Amino acid sequence: MKKIKLATICVVTALMTSTSFASSYQKLQHNKEVVTAFYEAAINNKDFSAAEKYMGSYYKQHNPMAEDGKEGFKKFIDYLRNTYPNSHSEIKRIMAEGDYVILHVHSIKVPDARGQAIVDIFRLENEKIVEHWDVIQDVPEKSANENGMF
Amino acid sequence: MKKIKLATICVVTALMTSTSFASSYQKLQHNKEVVTAFYEAAINNKDFSAAEKYMGSYYKQHNPMAEDGKEGFKKFIDYLRNTYPNSHSEIKRIMAEGDYVILHVHSIKVPDARGQAIVDIFRLENEKIVEHWDVIQDVPEKSANENGMF
Repeated sequence: MKKIKLATICVVTALMTSTSFASSYQKLQHNKEVVTAFYEAAINNKDFSAAEKYMGSYYKQHNPMAEDGKEGFKKFIDYLRNTYPNSHSEIKRIMAEGDYVILHVHSIKVPDARGQAIVDIFRLENEKIVEHWDVIQDVPEKSANENGMF
Repeated sequence: MKKIKLATICVVTALMTSTSFASSYQKLQHNKEVVTAFYEAAINNKDFSAAEKYMGSYYKQHNPMAEDGKEGFKKFIDYLRNTYPNSHSEIKRIMAEGDYVILHVHSIKVPDARGQAIVDIFRLENEKIVEHWDVIQDVPEKSANENGMF
């Protein structure tokens, strides 16, 4: 009987451990889905209302061209829709750890342009996006290697 | 007796599962240590020989300013040492998933400059660095928000 109890405790402990890791993994996958849906709604569809449901109660903006907050982000989306209605950004790779989701993106503002390489970093709280950083670089005409920027 | 056997099987299965997740976590932590040591040796100490031990048998370069391969990276480090001997890059955050490690960096080439925001993405094979992408942007004088680029 003692052995069974011991075994049961072991099972429960081990299951709790593995469940905890599996839960972390599921959280990362879910955060990626949230950021992908947000990105598509905001940056490609240029629809702030559709994007807003993925945002938390605040939005701390680190892109120096955009004003802070959700209202600042709305202004940025309006600017994008009015100035570059045909812009399109393709997510080349997506990574996540902890509360962060990282996108490596090829953004093309006008058709046939070489576009820009962008890395976006999003931080989430309770499955909602609350903070954003990015780094943006024009894809140059010439490169010292043949590998492309992606 | 059957119960004990069942419990034992459960324990082993659960432990294997949790061990697998723990092993993944340890791999991510180790990859971060490899990339951090590599970055310090190469970019801050500008010592290719010290950095080389963290590199795999090849190095696929996506930075359009640098030539491909390990020899191309050596040239880049030589250029950095000769042109910007006092440059310093501070890792602001580090993330990892799968075979990727991502650095968000503030790089300053000459003292008192505002510097550049950089995201570096490294891919590892068997604990060695084999591929690199980056995106680089000058930190602007003025910003539409007060949050800084990091």
